[in-house]
Amino acid sequence: MQRSLYEADHEAYRETVREFLAREVVPHHQDWDQNRWIDRDVFARAAKTGLYALQIGEEYGGAGESDYRYRMVVCEEIARINALSFGLTVALQDDLVLHYLLDLTNAEQKQRWLPGFADGSLIGALAMTEPGTGSDLRGIRTTARRDGDQWILNGQKTFISSGIMADLVVVAARTDERLSLFVVERDTPGFERGRKLDKIGLPGQDTAELFFHDAAVPAQNLLGEEGAGLNHLMSHLPRERLGVTATAIATARAIFDLTVQYCKERTAFGSSLIDKQHVRFELADMATEIDVAQAYADQSVLAYNAGELSPVDAAKGKWFVSELQKRVIDRCLQLHGGYGYMNEYPVARAFVDTRVQTIYAGTTEIMKEIIGRDLAGNR
Amino acid sequence: MQRSLYEADHEAYRETVREFLAREVVPHHQDWDQNRWIDRDVFARAAKTGLYALQIGEEYGGAGESDYRYRMVVCEEIARINALSFGLTVALQDDLVLHYLLDLTNAEQKQRWLPGFADGSLIGALAMTEPGTGSDLRGIRTTARRDGDQWILNGQKTFISSGIMADLVVVAARTDERLSLFVVERDTPGFERGRKLDKIGLPGQDTAELFFHDAAVPAQNLLGEEGAGLNHLMSHLPRERLGVTATAIATARAIFDLTVQYCKERTAFGSSLIDKQHVRFELADMATEIDVAQAYADQSVLAYNAGELSPVDAAKGKWFVSELQKRVIDRCLQLHGGYGYMNEYPVARAFVDTRVQTIYAGTTEIMKEIIGRDLAGNR
Amino acid sequence: MQRSLYEADHEAYRETVREFLAREVVPHHQDWDQNRWIDRDVFARAAKTGLYALQIGEEYGGAGESDYRYRMVVCEEIARINALSFGLTVALQDDLVLHYLLDLTNAEQKQRWLPGFADGSLIGALAMTEPGTGSDLRGIRTTARRDGDQWILNGQKTFISSGIMADLVVVAARTDERLSLFVVERDTPGFERGRKLDKIGLPGQDTAELFFHDAAVPAQNLLGEEGAGLNHLMSHLPRERLGVTATAIATARAIFDLTVQYCKERTAFGSSLIDKQHVRFELADMATEIDVAQAYADQSVLAYNAGELSPVDAAKGKWFVSELQKRVIDRCLQLHGGYGYMNEYPVARAFVDTRVQTIYAGTTEIMKEIIGRDLAGNR
Amino acid sequence: MQRSLYEADHEAYRETVREFLAREVVPHHQDWDQNRWIDRDVFARAAKTGLYALQIGEEYGGAGESDYRYRMVVCEEIARINALSFGLTVALQDDLVLHYLLDLTNAEQKQRWLPGFADGSLIGALAMTEPGTGSDLRGIRTTARRDGDQWILNGQKTFISSGIMADLVVVAARTDERLSLFVVERDTPGFERGRKLDKIGLPGQDTAELFFHDAAVPAQNLLGEEGAGLNHLMSHLPRERLGVTATAIATARAIFDLTVQYCKERTAFGSSLIDKQHVRFELADMATEIDVAQAYADQSVLAYNAGELSPVDAAKGKWFVSELQKRVIDRCLQLHGGYGYMNEYPVARAFVDTRVQTIYAGTTEIMKEIIGRDLAGNR
Repeated sequence: MQRSLYEADHEAYRETVREFLAREVVPHHQDWDQNRWIDRDVFARAAKTGLYALQIGEEYGGAGESDYRYRMVVCEEIARINALSFGLTVALQDDLVLHYLLDLTNAEQKQRWLPGFADGSLIGALAMTEPGTGSDLRGIRTTARRDGDQWILNGQKTFISSGIMADLVVVAARTDERLSLFVVERDTPGFERGRKLDKIGLPGQDTAELFFHDAAVPAQNLLGEEGAGLNHLMSHLPRERLGVTATAIATARAIFDLTVQYCKERTAFGSSLIDKQHVRFELADMATEIDVAQAYADQSVLAYNAGELSPVDAAKGKWFVSELQKRVIDRCLQLHGGYGYMNEYPVARAFVDTRVQTIYAGTTEIMKEIIGRDLAGNR
Repeated sequence: MQRSLYEADHEAYRETVREFLAREVVPHHQDWDQNRWIDRDVFARAAKTGLYALQIGEEYGGAGESDYRYRMVVCEEIARINALSFGLTVALQDDLVLHYLLDLTNAEQKQRWLPGFADGSLIGALAMTEPGTGSDLRGIRTTARRDGDQWILNGQKTFISSGIMADLVVVAARTDERLSLFVVERDTPGFERGRKLDKIGLPGQDTAELFFHDAAVPAQNLLGEEGAGLNHLMSHLPRERLGVTATAIATARAIFDLTVQYCKERTAFGSSLIDKQHVRFELADMATEIDVAQAYADQSVLAYNAGELSPVDAAKGKWFVSELQKRVIDRCLQLHGGYGYMNEYPVARAFVDTRVQTIYAGTTEIMKEIIGRDLAGNR
Repeated sequence: MQRSLYEADHEAYRETVREFLAREVVPHHQDWDQNRWIDRDVFARAAKTGLYALQIGEEYGGAGESDYRYRMVVCEEIARINALSFGLTVALQDDLVLHYLLDLTNAEQKQRWLPGFADGSLIGALAMTEPGTGSDLRGIRTTARRDGDQWILNGQKTFISSGIMADLVVVAARTDERLSLFVVERDTPGFERGRKLDKIGLPGQDTAELFFHDAAVPAQNLLGEEGAGLNHLMSHLPRERLGVTATAIATARAIFDLTVQYCKERTAFGSSLIDKQHVRFELADMATEIDVAQAYADQSVLAYNAGELSPVDAAKGKWFVSELQKRVIDRCLQLHGGYGYMNEYPVARAFVDTRVQTIYAGTTEIMKEIIGRDLAGNR
Repeated sequence: MQRSLYEADHEAYRETVREFLAREVVPHHQDWDQNRWIDRDVFARAAKTGLYALQIGEEYGGAGESDYRYRMVVCEEIARINALSFGLTVALQDDLVLHYLLDLTNAEQKQRWLPGFADGSLIGALAMTEPGTGSDLRGIRTTARRDGDQWILNGQKTFISSGIMADLVVVAARTDERLSLFVVERDTPGFERGRKLDKIGLPGQDTAELFFHDAAVPAQNLLGEEGAGLNHLMSHLPRERLGVTATAIATARAIFDLTVQYCKERTAFGSSLIDKQHVRFELADMATEIDVAQAYADQSVLAYNAGELSPVDAAKGKWFVSELQKRVIDRCLQLHGGYGYMNEYPVARAFVDTRVQTIYAGTTEIMKEIIGRDLAGNR
């Protein structure tokens, strides 16, 4: 279905994004995956081009533009070139870390950190998950103890995206019984990074364990209100979930489009693949499901822009569209036959990169629990 | 997700519709199902209240209002009271027959037929399907032979919704090699109605076989252009498909809402059903799928209003949402346990009434074939 | 896959069964459905022919044959003629009521009741479910209070298959805190039958509410041990579940076979339906799933014969094969197009008759709960 | 369900296999995956221990034991240690190459090749697929031209499992219009191996392109009858398909068992994962599906032993069980949450290793086409 989401400005922006990616990402992203590391400079160039961090105010070097449709354009263009490790790192800034900093910082903190995000020189990460806790925030055991004008952090985090690359990490820790958030900066004494985790996909994106052994964090790095960490985390869930939805629909569509092309060009048993009724039905199924999910995703973007995207509605999009992405890419891989199993084909890399989408940012099961409890009336 | 489809006028209209249904349909529709016949008077009252035929011009007694959102309101309100046989009869007029008459009639024909539709005194039907042809229009074997100022029709139609009740039937017949459309009126000599077919659901809605033995139809009852029948049929598919989509999403939601209520009230093993995680996950699944499909349906309504709903996009909605309706109602029935198998529960009747939604107006398979061919580039 | 379940004796028996059904059931079962009542005489004739109750000892007029393969043959042959209301009534005797009587009766009770089952003059029912309890036996509220040489029963049962027709009903009631079983015979004072429930399918099979108002049951009608009712019920679950599995696989296969035939004979768009790849894939899917499920069902029959079918393994078969039956028949209906919605086609009747298979004898959800708890180690 | 497939001899054999794997494979297979190469010596040790090639006659150094149950034991034990790259190499010998040599060789060829297979010094491969042909054997374009006492081969093969490691390769090539099979040995002039293909999984197992530029193959290396290649290939399909089925069911069960354990040990939200109803239902679903598929697989093994496993029945098992394997492992990964995405967890490696099972040895789609055509009556 013809979408009505975008206006001329967004399409102009798309050209800029596309041009940037062609020049700065396409020639490198396979090397990044090979090296399991993305060249940091690209983020500075991306930020300067306005690929992310648009929402930072002009006084800090940003564009003061919070329309999520620009973000959606970026997701679509990154998906089109299948640079998912790069895309995830950008998403992590734009849909996650940056919003903690925008919403929870005081004036002094804004001055310290926002310009670095705006020019791409600072990369952030968010550290909630601990070994064995999964999505259960109440299980967090990292502690922060006040000691003079410092907080002393002890504990361990895992599955931290960009944990190695990050210059500053937003860490959830227990102060008394409740959670608080802290910005832990690179070179903080007692803050150590563990090994880079060996994942089945997203090799360019680093994922790490982090350790805090009496890590001394300055008092002025407390983020938001002491003891209000859980609320702060909750209030940022809609955007995080919307970010996964946006990547998911864009990636599903990009791989689907490639697959339609493949099925037209590839012949078997004397005719093009798309001449087989089964293949056409598979493609028709996917085309429909993608369009249907797109309608919901686009509606979510507009609701988010209007400040009306509820955590529950964002949860619906997150699980549904990420599951759709998984299913679509699996079916597209199957249509590629043996080629789909070869890393040189985008569908193969998308297959392994995608598998975590239904897991991070709240598993499908957590999303359903949230929606189910809402239906039951006890949020 | 909060919908943004409706404006104040639509909600005011909803009140009118709801009040009408409460008074004129709720007390009777179970009897109609029992008697396998809907009292004809209700259609006159419905038309006068503006439940359908709004789109007829004021010069013929209509309201000249073609905004499909009013139609969507009607679908939702009929679904809420689970009067699906009544709903289908209305849909047949509003989404199907009436548009043939509005679009293809000449001035004289408009004068003859539109006022009757506007005041509900005329009920129409559309007769395409023949025994053994299914959705394959090219297999139509009914013929129309010109004889002076008459057309002589011979052949047989089947699965004709409202075939018994209809005062006039739009019949597709072969003139030479090509199809033409004819309006066959009640009491036309040689036009006979067969038995009322015994269906597993929709008992109030009559479905019939029709026979034409040298049926003499006046030349001025040719509808549209001679030989252009196939084009005429094709051009009306988007609205027909949208009509099924609208009923499907409305019915799925209505039964789902009832089921959430049921799961809150019903206890088993010492607690309310909704306290079981499996039940909550089932409901969360369905809530999500319904919201996602709703986004597409609402987008389709706006596209239709703008004259931009393509046959392919309408096909996507038709199969996806009718399959969703089937799946949702099946799952809701299961959640009702033994009660779901009892006709006194709305979910039970909805289950049998719904099963034909993926079949008529083009089966799911036909829809996928249409979408698949479009993807393949040879429409 | 070629099955290896049967030997020559079973195939000879199949001929007898087939001949009986052709003569005594085929000419009548549509009338039974129409009348919502099965002619009682057919059960006497069926019992005499050995269609059921084979397992009753020769001293009571039975054949003393407990090989479940004979039962499987009956399920297959009844499915072949699509007489599911008749089949369910037979199943109720053979897989359910009879085994309570065989296993739990004392010598005097055997003398009173078994000859009547062996000659088909007595029809039994089992009454566990109460309004609002579903599969939760612990929710049973019907009470039995000892009063001299009688038990006084008070309470209500619902969804009782053959509740109207039954001459004796095995009733679960609470004695003190625990459950006991009682045989309540026709004409017991205070025992009343409610209305015949109006179901979406299985019209020939009566399903009823039963009421006990100070119903006086002779002390010698206590079945099994006082207070051991729950154990008695549990110990009979494997056979009950196997019975559903047997009917499910047989019905799925029978309707599938009809549908293959239909797809060969029916033409659309210029060729036979089976010439469409999608149709062949649908049929290939179902052929495979049916063969796979058959392997499990046949293995279950042999395990049952050897006394080794566990309640958990029976639960696996019950839910998996009944869900398969539902899915297969739904897909077969779809392949029939509009004809599938017409009651004159076996697939249509099978569709409505089948829907309760995943509900009674323990819903799919209860089965999964049982299997899941077993995996968790706390049965 | 308790299986009845095995007897005491098979269980004794299982001990031998298990002991061998613990000693010779467990300490190394992760290195093999890391190095993308399996140490060749292990095959010689495996052959000597009787892990494969049992079916070679005693006169050539084998055990003359063709009971497929021994093979099934090996599949199960390799799956238990999650050594799928090793397992595939063994499968390739035992289920594929060896049977071409056993069935199609003349006495002289048997003398030349079977002892090497029996002692594990020779590794074989089968080269059918060509770029762009997929499963379509009729598309093979490699040619063999007779030139004196040699055949001159020209063409290219791809996706050849063990293509780099193999000492001899059975190659399908076109002689005149029809296919013939040739054994191409290491060091044949004009036979070159291309690059090792970069797959998403099974890293230890090499997969390669092979090139034939005027490769000169001695006339005595023709395998079977000239021009009968297609028949030879067809006649070996049941065993190849059964081999995939055996690996699939064994791997699904092994990963499932690990996952049950994981769900018992892992806690979240204050209790063990298995205490969540959703988790129990997921596990119950899988436990059932695995048992059901096992019944079919075991039945297939016995049918194969009896020489009665048809290509169609083998196709049913191949697609159904490999799709089940894929689905089970995907669900198990999801239950592992973030850990499931980490290569150090067996489920993660199984996820990527498994994805090709529905593709090679005939895709799911090819299997359904075969079954569907059989149902249609035109094999």
